[in-house]
Amino acid sequence: MDLELPDLHGSLGSPVIESMNFLNEVAQQYPDALSFAAGRPYEGFFDLGAVHRYLDRFVEHVRAGAGGDEARVRRTLLQYGRTKGIIHDLVAKNLRIDEGIEADPESIVVTVGCQEALFLTLRALRRTERDAVLAVIPCYVGLSGAAELADLPVLPVANSADGIDLDDLVRTVERAKADGLRPRALYVVPDFANPSGISMPRHTRERLLAVAEEHGFLLLEDNPYGLFHGTAGRPPALKALDSSRQVVYLGSYAKTGLPGARIGFVVADQPVTVAGAGPEPGGRQSLADQLAKIKSMLTVNTPPLAQAVLGGKLLTHDCDLRAANTRETRVYRDNLRHVLDGLAEHFPPGSSPEVTWNAPTGGFFVVLTLPFAADDALLALSARKHKVLWTPLHHFYGDGAARRQIRLSFSQLTPDEIHEGLHRLAAFIGELSAHQP
Amino acid sequence: MDLELPDLHGSLGSPVIESMNFLNEVAQQYPDALSFAAGRPYEGFFDLGAVHRYLDRFVEHVRAGAGGDEARVRRTLLQYGRTKGIIHDLVAKNLRIDEGIEADPESIVVTVGCQEALFLTLRALRRTERDAVLAVIPCYVGLSGAAELADLPVLPVANSADGIDLDDLVRTVERAKADGLRPRALYVVPDFANPSGISMPRHTRERLLAVAEEHGFLLLEDNPYGLFHGTAGRPPALKALDSSRQVVYLGSYAKTGLPGARIGFVVADQPVTVAGAGPEPGGRQSLADQLAKIKSMLTVNTPPLAQAVLGGKLLTHDCDLRAANTRETRVYRDNLRHVLDGLAEHFPPGSSPEVTWNAPTGGFFVVLTLPFAADDALLALSARKHKVLWTPLHHFYGDGAARRQIRLSFSQLTPDEIHEGLHRLAAFIGELSAHQP
Repeated sequence: MDLELPDLHGSLGSPVIESMNFLNEVAQQYPDALSFAAGRPYEGFFDLGAVHRYLDRFVEHVRAGAGGDEARVRRTLLQYGRTKGIIHDLVAKNLRIDEGIEADPESIVVTVGCQEALFLTLRALRRTERDAVLAVIPCYVGLSGAAELADLPVLPVANSADGIDLDDLVRTVERAKADGLRPRALYVVPDFANPSGISMPRHTRERLLAVAEEHGFLLLEDNPYGLFHGTAGRPPALKALDSSRQVVYLGSYAKTGLPGARIGFVVADQPVTVAGAGPEPGGRQSLADQLAKIKSMLTVNTPPLAQAVLGGKLLTHDCDLRAANTRETRVYRDNLRHVLDGLAEHFPPGSSPEVTWNAPTGGFFVVLTLPFAADDALLALSARKHKVLWTPLHHFYGDGAARRQIRLSFSQLTPDEIHEGLHRLAAFIGELSAHQP
Repeated sequence: MDLELPDLHGSLGSPVIESMNFLNEVAQQYPDALSFAAGRPYEGFFDLGAVHRYLDRFVEHVRAGAGGDEARVRRTLLQYGRTKGIIHDLVAKNLRIDEGIEADPESIVVTVGCQEALFLTLRALRRTERDAVLAVIPCYVGLSGAAELADLPVLPVANSADGIDLDDLVRTVERAKADGLRPRALYVVPDFANPSGISMPRHTRERLLAVAEEHGFLLLEDNPYGLFHGTAGRPPALKALDSSRQVVYLGSYAKTGLPGARIGFVVADQPVTVAGAGPEPGGRQSLADQLAKIKSMLTVNTPPLAQAVLGGKLLTHDCDLRAANTRETRVYRDNLRHVLDGLAEHFPPGSSPEVTWNAPTGGFFVVLTLPFAADDALLALSARKHKVLWTPLHHFYGDGAARRQIRLSFSQLTPDEIHEGLHRLAAFIGELSAHQP
């Protein structure tokens, strides 16, 4: 039986999914190129032996609570499990220690990576074709993709040096409402955003919370990089400042825990009233309970064995992942410095070609502005001829228009690779600039 | 911020999700009741030590293919991984050995349980509000739930002693088309269906394939119980008989492998033509490639660590899970016999109250027909007063109407528990019948 793409779900022909595919495949096509493309965590400290130790540590923890019931210990790890997860209490403790967030463990759903948390939330918020989600553009493609899958349009909000243009946010919300749309939530990465690298100052966070409350939409706070700040402290997470349950917090352990466990979570403590003719008239549940119902139809539960490994890592470090990641944080901070120093060396002020960049204080990403539009064809040329990969920023806009910005990710490289990679990048930019009018 | 259920996705108020919730919670409410309710695998052979051995076995396997590249071994288990999975070759070998199915490993997507495979497939097949999925009723609630999440209506097809009423299938398809609908696929569990326990004879399978080809819809074959036949051999899987790529095969390792790893998969070898103005004019990919694109926006990839544990189990048993499950198969076969013998003892032919049941040759389920409609209120009474749980069959119809059938699941019980449970069930039925007009 043959199928045709136009007969399959609309997301499959979208630029977003094509972007995701392109970005995944370009690294495989040029395996000998140095890659500033992938936003993956550093692999230098990966340790297979730790997996066994984490498993044992979690088993010990379950055993301590099982009162000698060994069948219950085995069942917890090996049988179908609780839909909302089996490490929710450890996640809550971790949030308190690392982020100053007080979360009721019952308001947490443990998910298959942060991506499932994102989809669950967007699917729940999509009731009719009038519903929409707001996002600061340029935006992580995983948000745009999950929104496509949930049939939810993304309304773009302008960025600023503070991570969001709040005036444009208000204008966008008001225009959307005038058009009959319901903006349900705004997706933001307040710390070291992907791809921009920008962090929101505290006053912007406070104003954003006030705007969301005034205009009646949720904030979806995604925080995969917050732990990796290179210098001083950072402002509190939105959820730590949230006094009106305006924030749904999307958590990832892919960068701070173990990517191979694929454990994420969502904190959704918003009360949900079952009004009208629902099965529980006047009943009250949390949004987390609703997300769990959707999860039961999507993945049933997050693999208990994967939760156990991550749970063992949390237990091993007393749920303090900032302390557990001191080595990694140093690598990312040093790499950021190597990138910024290297760029300053290759492209001194006033020199030609003119290349500028931002200077995040942490995270995985720096954004460069080139003297020419950097599209996928130029990336292929850069990969083939100069053996260096980077990410054209147009993929994070979703409109297909080429832009002069590119994203450099430095999380997976050594200082020597950064040095050599920037050398190759400068050669590529120099060659291209020589051909510009 | 308060939310209201009528503002959230429609699936959240549906009877299907309420059913799922009710069935999950009733067992927790009555922990001291004997349960014929849960369709979970037997726990008597669960072994935590095996998890470590399986992990090591899989690491050894990856190492053998990595040519001394230890960083690659660690990356395979601990980093983000291939979207379609890392055990696809082992799954293909297992399908050949256990099911006689020849599957190209590239046509396989490894998923977070069979449920994710189901959602990926239904989401891909839902283009517009005209699309629909067919299902033999009574039907596994996971299908109905995934369809709700994908905004895809379920068109019911009548059951028969052969597992499907093919005449009703053709009538339903023709009526749907006349109504402007597009029936994209039929969901079936040809072996020991949940909840009916019925298996399709070979001639029904062959006719079903012919009907699907003639009328241009896919068959979604779900096969979680096929390995557990109690007596002689069973007819080939639909996918093993499929010469026209009519069948999308949905696989689960929850019952045959390790439930706690939550590993399932889908075989989707249908070619997809990118017609019209698509990004690859005239290009050709498989449906599996499309499902992988959706997966990249849903869970990114199935936890490599969970795949590794299941992969290690496959390797340990040379991918022959039939052989690996001889002990479990014996338990299920003996339990089935204990249930059928016990029923015959409690409800001899011609006696009152009249209770009848079907006699599957394997699987996890038997269906009883009672002299009265068995709804949720009676289940609560049975649990509270007689301390025995079962599943009202109305939950598998999705229309809320009480029915006289109940499902008994016997996979998790010991013979003594079955003996005592049937004793309690007979007492409950006897008491209720005495109150019927």
